[in-house]
Amino acid sequence: MAEVENKNTKVGTVAILGLGLIGGTFAYALRDHKIAEKIIGIRVGRPSEAKALALGIVDELLPMEEAIGKADLVILSVPVNTCVEVLPKVLDLVENQMVIDMGSTKEALIKAVAGHPKRKRFLPAHPMWGTEFSGPEAAMHHVLQGKNFIICSKEDSDPDVSETVEKIIKKIGMNIVYMNGMAHDVHLAYVSHISHITSFALANTVLEKEKEEDNIFDLASSGFESTVRLAKSNPQTWVPIFMQNKENVLDVLNEHISQLRKFKSSLEKENWEFLADLIDNSNKIKKILDR
Amino acid sequence: MAEVENKNTKVGTVAILGLGLIGGTFAYALRDHKIAEKIIGIRVGRPSEAKALALGIVDELLPMEEAIGKADLVILSVPVNTCVEVLPKVLDLVENQMVIDMGSTKEALIKAVAGHPKRKRFLPAHPMWGTEFSGPEAAMHHVLQGKNFIICSKEDSDPDVSETVEKIIKKIGMNIVYMNGMAHDVHLAYVSHISHITSFALANTVLEKEKEEDNIFDLASSGFESTVRLAKSNPQTWVPIFMQNKENVLDVLNEHISQLRKFKSSLEKENWEFLADLIDNSNKIKKILDR
Repeated sequence: MAEVENKNTKVGTVAILGLGLIGGTFAYALRDHKIAEKIIGIRVGRPSEAKALALGIVDELLPMEEAIGKADLVILSVPVNTCVEVLPKVLDLVENQMVIDMGSTKEALIKAVAGHPKRKRFLPAHPMWGTEFSGPEAAMHHVLQGKNFIICSKEDSDPDVSETVEKIIKKIGMNIVYMNGMAHDVHLAYVSHISHITSFALANTVLEKEKEEDNIFDLASSGFESTVRLAKSNPQTWVPIFMQNKENVLDVLNEHISQLRKFKSSLEKENWEFLADLIDNSNKIKKILDR
Repeated sequence: MAEVENKNTKVGTVAILGLGLIGGTFAYALRDHKIAEKIIGIRVGRPSEAKALALGIVDELLPMEEAIGKADLVILSVPVNTCVEVLPKVLDLVENQMVIDMGSTKEALIKAVAGHPKRKRFLPAHPMWGTEFSGPEAAMHHVLQGKNFIICSKEDSDPDVSETVEKIIKKIGMNIVYMNGMAHDVHLAYVSHISHITSFALANTVLEKEKEEDNIFDLASSGFESTVRLAKSNPQTWVPIFMQNKENVLDVLNEHISQLRKFKSSLEKENWEFLADLIDNSNKIKKILDR
């Protein structure tokens, strides 16, 4: 296990569990910014592992215990249900290694290791980047710069862990945002999880119509594509996110259905002024998107 | 009034009413493909007219009667409620000119001129392109190629009108799709109008939350931006579209709310298999978006 060279923003060896879109993209960033000397993929027998090795995302594949033994930093980039199961086992194997995750939910994970003797070696983290694709082939270079990287409750982790991770993230060029796990999960429900539900539901709405109208999609425009793009996202990633963030997602989903009902009501009652007000209000999103 | 040179895919003079995003973009296409010799903007006293002249979208501005008198082809690119009012008046001024519109709804417009003696000089049309922006400054060059151009019920127009328009559209590089006005309005409700409603409602959902959570948008990701982008679209364009396509939009909105309720129910009942099925089904949208 190499010494962590904080001053040079280098970690010697990084072990990554989960070599898909996010794990792969993060590995590329560690390489591109010369942060990691070596990247080990943790072998658990998934097809993505050989692909990641072939793509040069990792230098070698090793079983978990061996990989963690050689690592300075362990990155968990697996679906959030797997992460909750595996993080306690990873921490069981940790001596002085640092561990971060990349998951889209935080509360359940933080609870899962609340009493663990090595809890302080773990820093809950979440890079705010993704695409609707998955697998190591979907991993991309140079896409994380300028994106947000959330660190949760850093006071519950050892200072050397948070300091090292902060240096790495700054070197990659991401903006660090701090919040606790509960705030994270509420925010994400609003600015990410609900977008996925509306996309999934919109796709299903139109696919339902396609059963009667063969050529309904011939006219699909860029506006339509924009709103259903996220419906390509896979259930393996998203069901566990919705499971773990159920209460927050239900809150925002209820609010969203009630907002849609206002549109429905304005149409049914032919209340065009109300409809104009609803659209006018939604236009305030410009100040957010254009800033 | 110049002779229409069908063989060379040229029209002499084009008069355009409505010099915003769509009118401007279409004017650029007519110029870029050397289809029009002259483009006259019809002056009705809107601020966009002077801008369009300054931007070179039109060669001159003339009052409606004079402009139509000089034109071979008249293009109406105004909000659909204005179009319904103005098309009969335009046809009143028409001798042998050709008239097309660019509106997002068709049934109401077709009904509005059903008995007009010059009805056959009019061809209902709809280019399937747009952005969330508006005004002549938002008009773009070289964006219509490969996009769909819908022509409705061409059998109700004089053959020289549809033939000339078809040649122009092919020259621009758009794909022509034929359907009647009723089919158009159903299709558009599914592949365009509902996307706008979901975006407007999603923006309102999150803006509502912002009232309690100051920094809710700090984490907004590209996925969120993608699903709310259309919420920048203006009420002046969209309220009239929803007014004219009320029944179809309500049908699809009701279906969409019921699809969202399935997500809600799967979360409330923690029926994760059902949730996975819903997402899995929505993934079928891939075959549409990627083709």
